[in-house]
Amino acid sequence: MSNADEAYKELIRQARETANLASIGALLSWDQETMMPVRAAAFRAEQLSLVARLAHERATDPRLGELLDRCDADSELTSDPPVAANLREMRRDYARLTLLPSELVAEISETSSRALEVWKVARRDNDFQAMLPWLEKQFELARRKAECYGAPKGGELYDALLEDYEPQMTGKELERIFEPLRVGLTQLITSIGAARHRPDDAPDSCRVPIDRQRRFSERILDRIGFERSAGRLDVSTHPFSTGIAPGDTRITTRYGETRFADALGSTMHEAGHAMYEQGLPRDRHFGEPLGESLSLGYHESQSRLWENHVGRSRAFWQWALPVAAKELGSGLERFSVDEVYEAVNAVRPSLIRVESDELTYNLHIMLRFDIERALLRGELAVRELPEAWNCRMLDDLGVKVPDDTRGCLQDIHWAMGSIGYFPTYTLGNLYAAQIWETITRALPDLDEQMSRGEFGPLLGWLREQIHAHGRCYRAAELCVRVTGKPLGHEPLMRHLDSKLRPIYRLDDNPASVG
Amino acid sequence: MSNADEAYKELIRQARETANLASIGALLSWDQETMMPVRAAAFRAEQLSLVARLAHERATDPRLGELLDRCDADSELTSDPPVAANLREMRRDYARLTLLPSELVAEISETSSRALEVWKVARRDNDFQAMLPWLEKQFELARRKAECYGAPKGGELYDALLEDYEPQMTGKELERIFEPLRVGLTQLITSIGAARHRPDDAPDSCRVPIDRQRRFSERILDRIGFERSAGRLDVSTHPFSTGIAPGDTRITTRYGETRFADALGSTMHEAGHAMYEQGLPRDRHFGEPLGESLSLGYHESQSRLWENHVGRSRAFWQWALPVAAKELGSGLERFSVDEVYEAVNAVRPSLIRVESDELTYNLHIMLRFDIERALLRGELAVRELPEAWNCRMLDDLGVKVPDDTRGCLQDIHWAMGSIGYFPTYTLGNLYAAQIWETITRALPDLDEQMSRGEFGPLLGWLREQIHAHGRCYRAAELCVRVTGKPLGHEPLMRHLDSKLRPIYRLDDNPASVG
Repeated sequence: MSNADEAYKELIRQARETANLASIGALLSWDQETMMPVRAAAFRAEQLSLVARLAHERATDPRLGELLDRCDADSELTSDPPVAANLREMRRDYARLTLLPSELVAEISETSSRALEVWKVARRDNDFQAMLPWLEKQFELARRKAECYGAPKGGELYDALLEDYEPQMTGKELERIFEPLRVGLTQLITSIGAARHRPDDAPDSCRVPIDRQRRFSERILDRIGFERSAGRLDVSTHPFSTGIAPGDTRITTRYGETRFADALGSTMHEAGHAMYEQGLPRDRHFGEPLGESLSLGYHESQSRLWENHVGRSRAFWQWALPVAAKELGSGLERFSVDEVYEAVNAVRPSLIRVESDELTYNLHIMLRFDIERALLRGELAVRELPEAWNCRMLDDLGVKVPDDTRGCLQDIHWAMGSIGYFPTYTLGNLYAAQIWETITRALPDLDEQMSRGEFGPLLGWLREQIHAHGRCYRAAELCVRVTGKPLGHEPLMRHLDSKLRPIYRLDDNPASVG
Repeated sequence: MSNADEAYKELIRQARETANLASIGALLSWDQETMMPVRAAAFRAEQLSLVARLAHERATDPRLGELLDRCDADSELTSDPPVAANLREMRRDYARLTLLPSELVAEISETSSRALEVWKVARRDNDFQAMLPWLEKQFELARRKAECYGAPKGGELYDALLEDYEPQMTGKELERIFEPLRVGLTQLITSIGAARHRPDDAPDSCRVPIDRQRRFSERILDRIGFERSAGRLDVSTHPFSTGIAPGDTRITTRYGETRFADALGSTMHEAGHAMYEQGLPRDRHFGEPLGESLSLGYHESQSRLWENHVGRSRAFWQWALPVAAKELGSGLERFSVDEVYEAVNAVRPSLIRVESDELTYNLHIMLRFDIERALLRGELAVRELPEAWNCRMLDDLGVKVPDDTRGCLQDIHWAMGSIGYFPTYTLGNLYAAQIWETITRALPDLDEQMSRGEFGPLLGWLREQIHAHGRCYRAAELCVRVTGKPLGHEPLMRHLDSKLRPIYRLDDNPASVG
């Protein structure tokens, strides 16, 4: 074996061990949200911090740099495309992690865990002033972090933060896509606001026992292709998905006595994330970039695709409504497929991002993107945040914000220092819509399949085209490779227009209605 | 701060970090038995092995030896009894761990995990021949391990293995206690075999829905003092208890549609273990010997005490039967307290240790003790094991063993290399009985309290007398301190005689029966 081959083998071994530690951290976190007794909380923080420290030590070990150098010097090794992709991404991760001084990493970590506790109380008590110094500190730390990373050539500091969540994306590129999207969304919202027809939300107002909802969720999971032998479904306050280890991807959801379709949407969303994890080539490449997800935007595209393009489609409900009526009881058989389809697609501008509909959701995100970018640039001061927030909510959504609890304190992200994260949600919607247009060309029978409860061809396509590649291609590259085009706003607007205009009868002749 | 104070502080910090890793391993194992999806098994082994390696590296770090030396050289530091106890036990643990070459540790670990897989199949298929080479290997490794530890002065190799489970116990001492115990037990079994009266097992044959049994178990747990805010109750194939971390002690049980009292006994047994863990001074001393349990024998004494001395007492059922009748339904109200009390104390010599009654259980253990000691001494060859086993079962219990599945292959212990472990089960019974005699003197109203469902004074006594001390005293020392006497067989025989002779009417005049 050559010197470089040995170095590569050792790199992979080290990467797997670091991933092993991260996977242990993931299990500790999952347990904390789902199973852990309350009095274990203090020590759980100590466990998580130890595991994070051990993983960080390994990921920044100078030996990794030497091993990478030895590999990169061997042209035979780097001529193998998967190996080259692994080396490129490992070099990128190592370079980024070692750019941050360990004192800054420690300060960020400690600030975040303390700020999180303050945020919980501040949000509950509508107390922005309590949160103000912590948010100021978080934006200052984010700026320092971004300065350590350094802005890309011709870019801005914000791009350096984005890179943590959506590699190679830039603020300018987001602007390019978001601006026309905002125009389209706002027009559609205005039209819908003026529409005479309103979907009836009666189908989603039935009372359904939670036990039955759980069984129904499991039935749907089995059908869409979430492998329960390699995962679990549990309950937590905030639904999440976590790809803990090979063969171990867990999701949670939450049930209400009414709004069964909300719970189902949440389950399908998390299942979308989870099926991406289950589709990654972890058996062969666990711990290597080739076995990892590409970006948060791509991750979100998979969840949104199953939640919105499948779970809010008429074809899906053609199959699912009779199943739901049987499994859930509660008089669902009274409703037609169209009534349910309209109910789950109703548009209602509202205060809370996580409760918002498929259309207005993206305006919530763009508001956050603009504000966090302005805050980072210093164009806006943190103390001006509530006013800026409330103005935008009124302008964009016509919604008056009654308090900061339901305004700028509603999300956890800034409190925990995740600045540059929000755009990935709308990127997920954009990728999902663009990928979906490609899928419907590749699988012309997809609607018929879904209406028969057949999701195998869809999942198979996603596995082959997206999941199997891990981080082999960069995000923009994979987008062109799969959809033939760079990411744009048009597919998402077409998707929303073509679904919502008929539901709200926007193209009907008013005379024929009156 | 003196040099030695600093060294002590650093020792404690290191011990806590090692315990942190061990606690992570405990959570991984708990999850594996209760929650983990099947396809995660292979990688879970890798996670467990990484955590075990990291913990072992820390526990054998030569720096610990240096720190211990610096502490021991400071007479002011070692004059503080709790500090002295911590140092004594840390020195002992460090010395033992560093006596084993790491190649031997690795060979034992690998052999055990492979032998375990073979054992599962061999037990299922009644295939002793398949298991033979693995058992031979395990006894050879055990001998090598014992040689590394070295036999204590005047002792035998077996003592060096015992030390892993029951520090300072010896084969000779066990013999001294077990021999008269065996005589007493055998006589009692013979008398019971000839008794005319037989308890009716109808009370424990009711069909009870598992959901109701779970609620009943939770009710009992809350009442006896298992803190559910610092623990959980789940289900697993083999019930167990695990003290994962401060504020996090979890137990499992198993329910059958019938035999609710078996499930309850199992729950109370594990709760006894768990309440010991919850009573350890972990808030102050987690990771230090002062915050750890004393020995497996003491651990088992706590489980047996709650399972047998509480859960099989008439006083307990005076309170519990009306509760059970209400919570479980199933017609339990038809039975009297005495009928239930007799049913849960029925003696039936049987093949399987874990299903055996309170009386015959100890003969199962002594059989294993004699055989594993003879195997280690080379007085018995592993290939002769089935014959030796079957002869003893016939002699001791009058039971004919039909196959090795229900004979010498029934237990996991030897397959996983746990040689010297079995005696701790009967030690637990002995300690429990001797402690119980002390408790009934200290709490003369205990029976009345239990019959009212009051267990606080009992648990409080155990906390103060046993749990709070951690490993401050050695096992034999604590026994004398608490009960006034060295461990003996008499309290256990008195307990069994005084309970079982009346149940089987052994002292009634036969004429008055006939």
